[in-house]
Amino acid sequence: MEIKLITLNEVTSDLQSQLTELYKQLNADLTQLDIASALSDYNTTEAVICMDEGKLVGIAMMAKYKVVSGHKGMIEDVVVSSDYRGQGIGRKLMEKLLEQAESSKLDDVLLFSGHHRTAAISLYKSLGFKLKESGMYIKKY
Amino acid sequence: MEIKLITLNEVTSDLQSQLTELYKQLNADLTQLDIASALSDYNTTEAVICMDEGKLVGIAMMAKYKVVSGHKGMIEDVVVSSDYRGQGIGRKLMEKLLEQAESSKLDDVLLFSGHHRTAAISLYKSLGFKLKESGMYIKKY
Repeated sequence: MEIKLITLNEVTSDLQSQLTELYKQLNADLTQLDIASALSDYNTTEAVICMDEGKLVGIAMMAKYKVVSGHKGMIEDVVVSSDYRGQGIGRKLMEKLLEQAESSKLDDVLLFSGHHRTAAISLYKSLGFKLKESGMYIKKY
Repeated sequence: MEIKLITLNEVTSDLQSQLTELYKQLNADLTQLDIASALSDYNTTEAVICMDEGKLVGIAMMAKYKVVSGHKGMIEDVVVSSDYRGQGIGRKLMEKLLEQAESSKLDDVLLFSGHHRTAAISLYKSLGFKLKESGMYIKKY
C-alpha cells in the first residue's frame, strides 16, 4: 500500500476511471470534475492518493487559498474505498495533506464534516482539528 | 458610495492602511496578510470594496478553488465599517461577489458565520444561502 501526492502528469485515463468509481462511494449523485482540471486549473489544489497493487483505494484533496485573514487550506473530497476502511488509510491521507500544509506554511486548515460522521470527526479531532462555533452556509448554482 | 471589484494595480499604500484599520473591526487580534498578497499570490481571490468619498467603508473577499466535487468559492473577511452599518452595504458587497461567482460559473459558494451573528445570517439566507448540516473544523498553525 502506498500513500502519495499525485501530480498532473501522473493522471492517466485508468486512474481517472478509478477515481470516478471511488467518488461514487462518497456521493453517487455528485457531478464530478475531472481530477486533471482540479489539479491544473488553478494549480493550488493538492491531491493525495492511496494505491494498493495498482488499485486506487483512497483519496483526499486540499485546496489552498489566500485571503486577508490568512493563507488557508480547505480539505475536501476525502474517501476510502469501503473494502479498505478501518485500516488507518484515512489518517495517512490526512497526515500527508497536513505535511503539505506545514511545508506551504499555511495559517489554518479547514474542513467541514456532517455531524453524523462520527468516525471521521474523531479522526479529525485526533489530528488537532477543533469544531468552530460557526455554521457552514452554501449557495448552489 | 461606490461598490467595485479591486484589482492588484489599484492597491495603493493608502488603501492598504485603510484596509488594515477596517479589518481590525472584524478581529483586532488577527494577523493580516497584505491585500496585494491575497490578490496576487494565487490569482484566485476576488475582492470587492465600498468607497465613500475616498474612504474605504467595506470589503468582502471570495477565494475560488477547484476540487473533484466542484468549482467553488469561499467567501471570507466580510466587514463594513461600524459607522456605515444598516445601510445595505454588506448586501451590495455580497451581491457583487455573487455576480462574480456566476460569471466564473461556480458550482457552489460557501461561507461560515458564527451562530451569534444573526444579522449577517439573515442577509446570507436572503441571498440564497442555506445552513449545511455540517460542522466546520479548523486546525491552526
